[in-house]
Amino acid sequence: MLLAMTSDKVDSVDSVGDAERVFRSAPFVRDLGLELESLSPGSCVSSLTLAPRHLQQDGFVHAGVQATVADHTAGTAAATTIPPDRIILSIEFKINLLRPAMGDRLVCRAQVLRSGKRIIVAESEVFSADSSGERLVSKATVTLAVVPRPSPGDLPV
Amino acid sequence: MLLAMTSDKVDSVDSVGDAERVFRSAPFVRDLGLELESLSPGSCVSSLTLAPRHLQQDGFVHAGVQATVADHTAGTAAATTIPPDRIILSIEFKINLLRPAMGDRLVCRAQVLRSGKRIIVAESEVFSADSSGERLVSKATVTLAVVPRPSPGDLPV
Amino acid sequence: MLLAMTSDKVDSVDSVGDAERVFRSAPFVRDLGLELESLSPGSCVSSLTLAPRHLQQDGFVHAGVQATVADHTAGTAAATTIPPDRIILSIEFKINLLRPAMGDRLVCRAQVLRSGKRIIVAESEVFSADSSGERLVSKATVTLAVVPRPSPGDLPV
Amino acid sequence: MLLAMTSDKVDSVDSVGDAERVFRSAPFVRDLGLELESLSPGSCVSSLTLAPRHLQQDGFVHAGVQATVADHTAGTAAATTIPPDRIILSIEFKINLLRPAMGDRLVCRAQVLRSGKRIIVAESEVFSADSSGERLVSKATVTLAVVPRPSPGDLPV
Repeated sequence: MLLAMTSDKVDSVDSVGDAERVFRSAPFVRDLGLELESLSPGSCVSSLTLAPRHLQQDGFVHAGVQATVADHTAGTAAATTIPPDRIILSIEFKINLLRPAMGDRLVCRAQVLRSGKRIIVAESEVFSADSSGERLVSKATVTLAVVPRPSPGDLPV
Repeated sequence: MLLAMTSDKVDSVDSVGDAERVFRSAPFVRDLGLELESLSPGSCVSSLTLAPRHLQQDGFVHAGVQATVADHTAGTAAATTIPPDRIILSIEFKINLLRPAMGDRLVCRAQVLRSGKRIIVAESEVFSADSSGERLVSKATVTLAVVPRPSPGDLPV
Repeated sequence: MLLAMTSDKVDSVDSVGDAERVFRSAPFVRDLGLELESLSPGSCVSSLTLAPRHLQQDGFVHAGVQATVADHTAGTAAATTIPPDRIILSIEFKINLLRPAMGDRLVCRAQVLRSGKRIIVAESEVFSADSSGERLVSKATVTLAVVPRPSPGDLPV
Repeated sequence: MLLAMTSDKVDSVDSVGDAERVFRSAPFVRDLGLELESLSPGSCVSSLTLAPRHLQQDGFVHAGVQATVADHTAGTAAATTIPPDRIILSIEFKINLLRPAMGDRLVCRAQVLRSGKRIIVAESEVFSADSSGERLVSKATVTLAVVPRPSPGDLPV
């Protein structure tokens, strides 16, 4: 893991600071209730206290909740590896839902697999957690584009 | 599209009715604001009126919102093709975010590509819509398992 | 389909010519036996006469054969939309194998879903064909990077 | 990794034996030149000596080669976890090509992430190797169906 980190010469203090902005300033993620647990160059951990509104029609955590958690945590890990004049945008992701998810909380651990100048690939593991421990419930691979920070009113792509 | 439909001998009236339950009874999707537009054997159309809470950190619709819409609409399309004693569970999906999504509304059209006894594959196209028209913003492929409806308290897998 | 084509101002004659080079000059694809059927801006059709060496352990066409066909045909479709000083590289793809594939031939039809300056997304449908007709056996989504043509000896990324 | 192994009560001796058949009896993989390096319950390692016929149009290892190696090694890892009256079939996979692949050899390490009665998810990491060491070039996630071994002449699905 974190394979490309040593050669990236990232100013990790600034990048980690901006990654925290990425994590915290997304309204959808705030609305969901996702919390930042930890952040370091190339990785991010988040958690979500589960509530009835996170479920699907048969009582399990909705795939969309798991996807949001996996994508956002991976994106924040990616954001720790980019220069301050850039932003990241998810261009695609894939998630495998390994078991029906239940429990008190989700915990997500994301790591950058490869940080290029223009493309970053990160992966996220989502665990359901309760008093009996943690259980891997889904795993995602996220591909992100690194694009210039747009001027206000401009589109990044 | 709808390639396998003719051989599936699905009682489409009952299945479409249960698919409507799938669509409407998921708390996360109700909370998001997703609405059912239409439903027929093997396909489903939904729409979402966009609000600030659906955005990510740079003002675009969050990938997790698009993923939720794509997954749930595909799952509902899949649910129109299964017998009444079964439920569907997403086992994996992949979504490509083709352009930053903005606008007044998202519209999602999902169709079943292949409906097997145990595995269903469906795809969803998500469009952003405003007064100037529709624009394809993301496309997803969703793989679902068809499993026995669990008794109350039981796990399906 | 071909949604972004009108705004791409591609010199389609040159690009289609280079796409033909992409298709024909890949040793692995020549070795496989894949043939170019047709090429136009944003799309490509290929075919493969099936032989015993294309199979997996239980007598069906190997997933790797289908993946190679889907990736290469999508990449060639993408190559029709880029300027002459660029090349395309697959950065990821996903394929759903909808049914066990058999028959005399595979036919693959690929189309560009979105052609950006730096990222192209294309999809491929793979059909098995015999005297009774065609049958969709797999469908892939391919994401490609558009990168400067490397000087001899240089790496593109 | 190997998360579900302890509860699977697999007769690992027989299953590993059949997995070796899966690995070795696929004509396409024999033709490619892929070799089995090691096999244990839930995991598989393979290697491929690279030759000019494995390349794409710009001199890198073709994505289809990497996909074949990743899919087949993951499938063999999955086959170590199933009963003798079952076979596995890839139902979908996704591969991220992290860097252009070159070198003398590819080495692929696959592990089962989740082994269910009907669905197995495995992942493969593909490394390029030469005298300077190994380098991760691609990573894949593979979803497989566990289906009854078909009688001769029957279709498994």
